[in-house]
Amino acid sequence: MSKKRVGIIGAGPSGLAQLRAFEAAKKKGFEVPEVVCFEKQSNWGGMWNFSWRTGVGKYGEPIHGSMYKYLWSNGPKECLEFSDYSFDEHFKKPISSYPPRPVLFDYIQGRIKKDDVRAYIRFDTTVRWVNFNEATKKFEVVLDNLKDDVTYTEEFDYLVVASGHFSTPNMPYFKGIEHFPGQVLHAHDFRGADPYRDQDILIVGSSYSAEDIGVQCHKHGAKSVTLSYRTNPIGVNWPEGISEVPLLMRFEDDIAHFKDGSSKRYDAVILCTGYQHKFPFLPDELRMKTKNNLYPDQVYKGIFFNELPKMMYLGMQDQYYTFNMFDTQAWLARDYMMGTYKLPTKEERRVDMDKWLRANQKLESSFDHVDFQTDYIKDLLSLSDYPDFNVDKVAVMFKEWLKDKDEDILTYRDKTFQSVVTGTMAETHHTEWMDELDDSKERYLYMDESNDEMEFTMEKNTL
Amino acid sequence: MSKKRVGIIGAGPSGLAQLRAFEAAKKKGFEVPEVVCFEKQSNWGGMWNFSWRTGVGKYGEPIHGSMYKYLWSNGPKECLEFSDYSFDEHFKKPISSYPPRPVLFDYIQGRIKKDDVRAYIRFDTTVRWVNFNEATKKFEVVLDNLKDDVTYTEEFDYLVVASGHFSTPNMPYFKGIEHFPGQVLHAHDFRGADPYRDQDILIVGSSYSAEDIGVQCHKHGAKSVTLSYRTNPIGVNWPEGISEVPLLMRFEDDIAHFKDGSSKRYDAVILCTGYQHKFPFLPDELRMKTKNNLYPDQVYKGIFFNELPKMMYLGMQDQYYTFNMFDTQAWLARDYMMGTYKLPTKEERRVDMDKWLRANQKLESSFDHVDFQTDYIKDLLSLSDYPDFNVDKVAVMFKEWLKDKDEDILTYRDKTFQSVVTGTMAETHHTEWMDELDDSKERYLYMDESNDEMEFTMEKNTL
Repeated sequence: MSKKRVGIIGAGPSGLAQLRAFEAAKKKGFEVPEVVCFEKQSNWGGMWNFSWRTGVGKYGEPIHGSMYKYLWSNGPKECLEFSDYSFDEHFKKPISSYPPRPVLFDYIQGRIKKDDVRAYIRFDTTVRWVNFNEATKKFEVVLDNLKDDVTYTEEFDYLVVASGHFSTPNMPYFKGIEHFPGQVLHAHDFRGADPYRDQDILIVGSSYSAEDIGVQCHKHGAKSVTLSYRTNPIGVNWPEGISEVPLLMRFEDDIAHFKDGSSKRYDAVILCTGYQHKFPFLPDELRMKTKNNLYPDQVYKGIFFNELPKMMYLGMQDQYYTFNMFDTQAWLARDYMMGTYKLPTKEERRVDMDKWLRANQKLESSFDHVDFQTDYIKDLLSLSDYPDFNVDKVAVMFKEWLKDKDEDILTYRDKTFQSVVTGTMAETHHTEWMDELDDSKERYLYMDESNDEMEFTMEKNTL
Repeated sequence: MSKKRVGIIGAGPSGLAQLRAFEAAKKKGFEVPEVVCFEKQSNWGGMWNFSWRTGVGKYGEPIHGSMYKYLWSNGPKECLEFSDYSFDEHFKKPISSYPPRPVLFDYIQGRIKKDDVRAYIRFDTTVRWVNFNEATKKFEVVLDNLKDDVTYTEEFDYLVVASGHFSTPNMPYFKGIEHFPGQVLHAHDFRGADPYRDQDILIVGSSYSAEDIGVQCHKHGAKSVTLSYRTNPIGVNWPEGISEVPLLMRFEDDIAHFKDGSSKRYDAVILCTGYQHKFPFLPDELRMKTKNNLYPDQVYKGIFFNELPKMMYLGMQDQYYTFNMFDTQAWLARDYMMGTYKLPTKEERRVDMDKWLRANQKLESSFDHVDFQTDYIKDLLSLSDYPDFNVDKVAVMFKEWLKDKDEDILTYRDKTFQSVVTGTMAETHHTEWMDELDDSKERYLYMDESNDEMEFTMEKNTL
């Protein structure tokens, strides 16, 4: 019998977790299926692969990344640590709890570079269309090699959709926005706070993008930042220079009018209005159709598409847990594809999904959300051999993090946490976050060892 | 025998020309095939349907339009007039030779609204994939109804690709651009010159986008505009405040260094580096693969895909002639689909294409380009019943236009030309172009009749 074939869509944290899961089994001596991963970018890392581009990439495909300069982790790294590859193993020394993007990207790559998983990835390749052939029970996947401008079709027994859900902006219309004279952009196209220095900035939204982009603009010298919320304010202790107002109702030229009757003139508008789950390459009967949600419907264990569990989704939930959640999902998906994990019947799966959906509906506070996803991770951990870790302790850290942010949104990144994987206590970073304008890996890791390099970097930043 | 089915991709000027061509035949009493046009936007007009959005649209599809506020025709309207629907018929009075976008959009719509062609168009519908079935000789087209999130497949005997080629940016990398602190955008995402007031703007490119966006930024108050060219400068008489420099070599933070050793600090960079022909919905063997060009290879008469002439492309050439060229193409495509125009053999077509390609290669000056496309239009006119018009006189107007721009890039839009369709001489616009900051249809058409409205509009603009 020929080997089963697995197709993975996307080589970001989720897709790489799936590759790593198969490699882990291979190292234990198991025979693994033939795995091919398709990545439309020229490098792996998904969202963590920063691009200066907005709109479309060099081959005209929509840009995947929403990353910006000066992005630092907005949660403690101890809450996302791989339990099979610690920060200590990678960096050989303790680091702070909130590293900048290049440092986290380095960490993700470190684990993957240990194995030769790069060979499984076809870069610059996008999936155009998927057809599930009922007769052969195989997925016919239409692929587009962007670099060579060649299309072709391949068959797979299993399909893992790991294409993320922070790439396709949700961008509502506000009356008069078409006449606003300044720049209007979605958070997806925000590439750093520098252009907004000395400007009055309106940010629409009240989730993580709004919070962090607002703080970034403040930190890097915006004159004022106004955050406009639809239902509830973020409600932390904002510093002077940042304020929250109710929903934006309309624009009159460069003046925004809000629901409470207040108004103000702005230089630019950044719509932090969220992202859509978007799967243009799937027929609609195989598409996950969901709003942002801790437990999207249609997928058993948050992974297996119930109508056709040979198709799996990774990382499509709202996320407290991130890298470690993708791992727990990928390990279970792997076991199903290798035949060592058996799915219950469709009806039994439906019952289980409904149980989680009901629990999800009852959640009220952020702490409830953390507990819910903690239970979800525990459930997954119980089903595969992904290295166990103290999830309850991670949940405690998430709650501390939420409190820290409430207390002071500008200093929470100066706090430190303890690893549940190694027990290592994080170092305090050499510079307080609000004073740290350089997010390079060199300055973050090597300031003590290489003063020259640091000075050069700082000089560049203060030009 | 059941009716043949025609699929048209795109309801912009080319797609609408195809619909109009069939309607014209129907009105003459011919039996026409069943025609369905797919448009991913919510309205027709293609590029002329302005959107404030950049990146993706409300359903997460790449934004088609590259239009910006204050765009005025950059060629005389007398060079693009429909020969079966004059400006006089639409506006009932003479207007100037260079109308703003809303006025041209109104004109395009006027012709189409005469017939009920809207019924043929499925809006909010994008083409995901096309397969030509060799057995049935039909195109299997996978469609995505974005509004309802439903996908389906339909079969067509003929396929007309009218999706344009000014939507997918070509965006080369320049060393250091990822560290440039200001905004970096492609012309595709430029929505108006207002955000660049009092700024030093670098524009990379030397074609129409660069020329017009540079002039727009100058007109609307940029501190300085620098245009950087790769091979040849635009070379017109630039006013003070606009200058041309050789190729951009690299950035050092916000400083751009050019090939001649000069350098300057900039607030923003606008890459007017052209567009790619992009057909993500076609298998590569049916894709037109071409650089921007007056005579793309692979298509006979600039229309019929030589390997499979049941597939046609409209408007994929570099364009002096625009709306009237799309018409001459659409009329001939229609006659082929209705069986009244017979194609020669594949080999004969190849011989004809090679003849044109050789002629294209010999072109040197802009005047040569105009003459080449004039010959092309004459060739098409000789093959269908599209109403004849004095193409040679249009060619003369194009050459005058080129001279006008050379002489004064800021005043060429104040010139007037004579219609070859009606003989009407254009009116001089009530305000010189450089002083006209309002591009609304109301102000353009009704200034005399409605002073109140005009004053209101002006007031808004000077806020």
